[in-house]
Amino acid sequence: MRIRPFPAVTAVSAHCDLPCGVYDPAQARIEAQSVKACMEKYHGSTDHDFQSRAVAIKEERSDLVKHHLWVLWTDYFKAAHFEKYPQLNTLFNEATKLAGAGGTKGSTDLAVADQLLAKIDEIAEIFWETKKA
Amino acid sequence: MRIRPFPAVTAVSAHCDLPCGVYDPAQARIEAQSVKACMEKYHGSTDHDFQSRAVAIKEERSDLVKHHLWVLWTDYFKAAHFEKYPQLNTLFNEATKLAGAGGTKGSTDLAVADQLLAKIDEIAEIFWETKKA
Amino acid sequence: MRIRPFPAVTAVSAHCDLPCGVYDPAQARIEAQSVKACMEKYHGSTDHDFQSRAVAIKEERSDLVKHHLWVLWTDYFKAAHFEKYPQLNTLFNEATKLAGAGGTKGSTDLAVADQLLAKIDEIAEIFWETKKA
Amino acid sequence: MRIRPFPAVTAVSAHCDLPCGVYDPAQARIEAQSVKACMEKYHGSTDHDFQSRAVAIKEERSDLVKHHLWVLWTDYFKAAHFEKYPQLNTLFNEATKLAGAGGTKGSTDLAVADQLLAKIDEIAEIFWETKKA
Amino acid sequence: MRIRPFPAVTAVSAHCDLPCGVYDPAQARIEAQSVKACMEKYHGSTDHDFQSRAVAIKEERSDLVKHHLWVLWTDYFKAAHFEKYPQLNTLFNEATKLAGAGGTKGSTDLAVADQLLAKIDEIAEIFWETKKA
Amino acid sequence: MRIRPFPAVTAVSAHCDLPCGVYDPAQARIEAQSVKACMEKYHGSTDHDFQSRAVAIKEERSDLVKHHLWVLWTDYFKAAHFEKYPQLNTLFNEATKLAGAGGTKGSTDLAVADQLLAKIDEIAEIFWETKKA
Repeated sequence: MRIRPFPAVTAVSAHCDLPCGVYDPAQARIEAQSVKACMEKYHGSTDHDFQSRAVAIKEERSDLVKHHLWVLWTDYFKAAHFEKYPQLNTLFNEATKLAGAGGTKGSTDLAVADQLLAKIDEIAEIFWETKKA
Repeated sequence: MRIRPFPAVTAVSAHCDLPCGVYDPAQARIEAQSVKACMEKYHGSTDHDFQSRAVAIKEERSDLVKHHLWVLWTDYFKAAHFEKYPQLNTLFNEATKLAGAGGTKGSTDLAVADQLLAKIDEIAEIFWETKKA
Repeated sequence: MRIRPFPAVTAVSAHCDLPCGVYDPAQARIEAQSVKACMEKYHGSTDHDFQSRAVAIKEERSDLVKHHLWVLWTDYFKAAHFEKYPQLNTLFNEATKLAGAGGTKGSTDLAVADQLLAKIDEIAEIFWETKKA
Repeated sequence: MRIRPFPAVTAVSAHCDLPCGVYDPAQARIEAQSVKACMEKYHGSTDHDFQSRAVAIKEERSDLVKHHLWVLWTDYFKAAHFEKYPQLNTLFNEATKLAGAGGTKGSTDLAVADQLLAKIDEIAEIFWETKKA
Repeated sequence: MRIRPFPAVTAVSAHCDLPCGVYDPAQARIEAQSVKACMEKYHGSTDHDFQSRAVAIKEERSDLVKHHLWVLWTDYFKAAHFEKYPQLNTLFNEATKLAGAGGTKGSTDLAVADQLLAKIDEIAEIFWETKKA
Repeated sequence: MRIRPFPAVTAVSAHCDLPCGVYDPAQARIEAQSVKACMEKYHGSTDHDFQSRAVAIKEERSDLVKHHLWVLWTDYFKAAHFEKYPQLNTLFNEATKLAGAGGTKGSTDLAVADQLLAKIDEIAEIFWETKKA
């Protein structure tokens, strides 16, 4: 018995603004996991050049988190969703801020990455509820 | 009971070349799904400008498929994997060709997108076997 | 007497997420003006290749509008602003949608570009009020 | 009475090479302001990671300055302009050099950023003269 | 006896703005060759989607030509070169215009691509003279 | 007698995935030369900010090496080539790894850059043999 790479119930999905109709919070989460891993590797090293690379890559990956979340907020969620989930705007604004200068870009604190991941999970839960509806 | 956005057994993962150690074939698959959806929308429209956008976005998404696969091939898989799975090189070469000019870039045939998705699934199966090991 | 390239009262400003603290809705507006100009040139031509280029460049410029607006929404505006201007979230969500598939990306209707410009102006007005405060 | 976000006399404008005909030296200036702000933040901090981010973002923003200036030089200015303003070529070459390795990329000296801003203003003055003509 | 991939006398070289000191007009020429090949393929096809892709890729490749030339103009050539070769500014301005909207971006005329290639060769000749000096 | 900028026997060539049919290992080699030059400049400096820039640019240029090699591997080489040159897959996999985290991205050792250059030369030799065929 093997570990399923792609869960049967969820169409793994994305975000092109044709729109193709394929969206998935996994894209943001994957990059956020990478951000956290960069922080861990940063703390596990004393090589200055390596740390400098970790900071730079963390910056880039944080930017991707912001991008993927913005796409969901603008392209996937419609007026009816915002009515049903009035917390959505704040959730997205806080999540993208957590991936920015005041969040994972400006910090190497693992707790900040965990807060970002938790926010993305809150968004994902709502996302998948709307997909079921 | 809700649909789990992120399966419990698989660490959803990515690809930064720090390396952060986070890889996931889902990234390639998400883009390939988008490529297929662009083809479907292309065939469902008679608006010439829309079709032109569909072709352009399909091109861009196909490029992302290639990129994500190349990253797995070079950054994730090691010499020991290639020894255990001698088909890996050909699999990756064929999969990336299927996302190129002779594949989903140059075609709007849904069958080509399905072949690409099937190749990615073959790669994913090997990938997750190596993660278990 | 010459036309001032840069108005004396406004610090022309931008958006890096260091953050450098330099923001300006002009960046979004410049790209939206370009989107509208692409539509005008599209309608003024019967050369198919030129129209195809106009559609592609309009797509790219619309994307830049979305990006510049997202940056303002996440990076510039703080909790206190959202409290004082409760319409901000909806304004940004509608503006970025107007630059997307259901807006200037999917349309060559000049009225859509004008709606986008009007939304950006509404945002800019609030922005400059907060800068005065 | 509010501060006008967009000055009435100048069509805020940009640079797509359709061409849409929308150009504006403000784009280069906004990025140059950001470069200068990055330098200021660099000097105001002792956090090594923050300084490393400031240097990296300054590099990126300097690159955007160069790009926006190059676009003006090639896409906006025509043979007649170069005849009327024989200093234009040197002005652009010096300005882009000032945003490069020998300028704001390789330095954190605020005076260098000010020299860059001054050159951009010289270019902008000529630009707006030609728009009046 | 095999064809030498890299000529012995010329250090094949590039353009990073550290600067690494590695420059080579070959980069611009390679992209210009690709632009010309896209035109040829465009004319050799009647498939509308393929032609649309050819136009889009030609646009992108023309942009790369402009970029590589701008880098040479700003980063490689110094004041002394411009004094010795007073035609340099005009040469670069004309070459980049030939890769723009009024050149290979806006045209599928092979003669335009040939003019662009000829200009790049003129620049390359001067470039290699200065390297010898 | 002047140094020829472009060798007469080799069509300097590139990589667009129309495909335009223009490929050339020189693109990868140029970036690898730049990587090596960044290392040399890194070692020749004691300015911390400069070294940080050298590391960042080396990262970016290494990425370009990987990209250009991947394009050759997928887009240029066909099944018949892999049959005739069974070492090709391993050669490309090793070369791209040498430009990655375990190679020139993660190291400032000139010997690593030389190994990368040597691998590219091996690939180039095969490439030009196939062009002659």
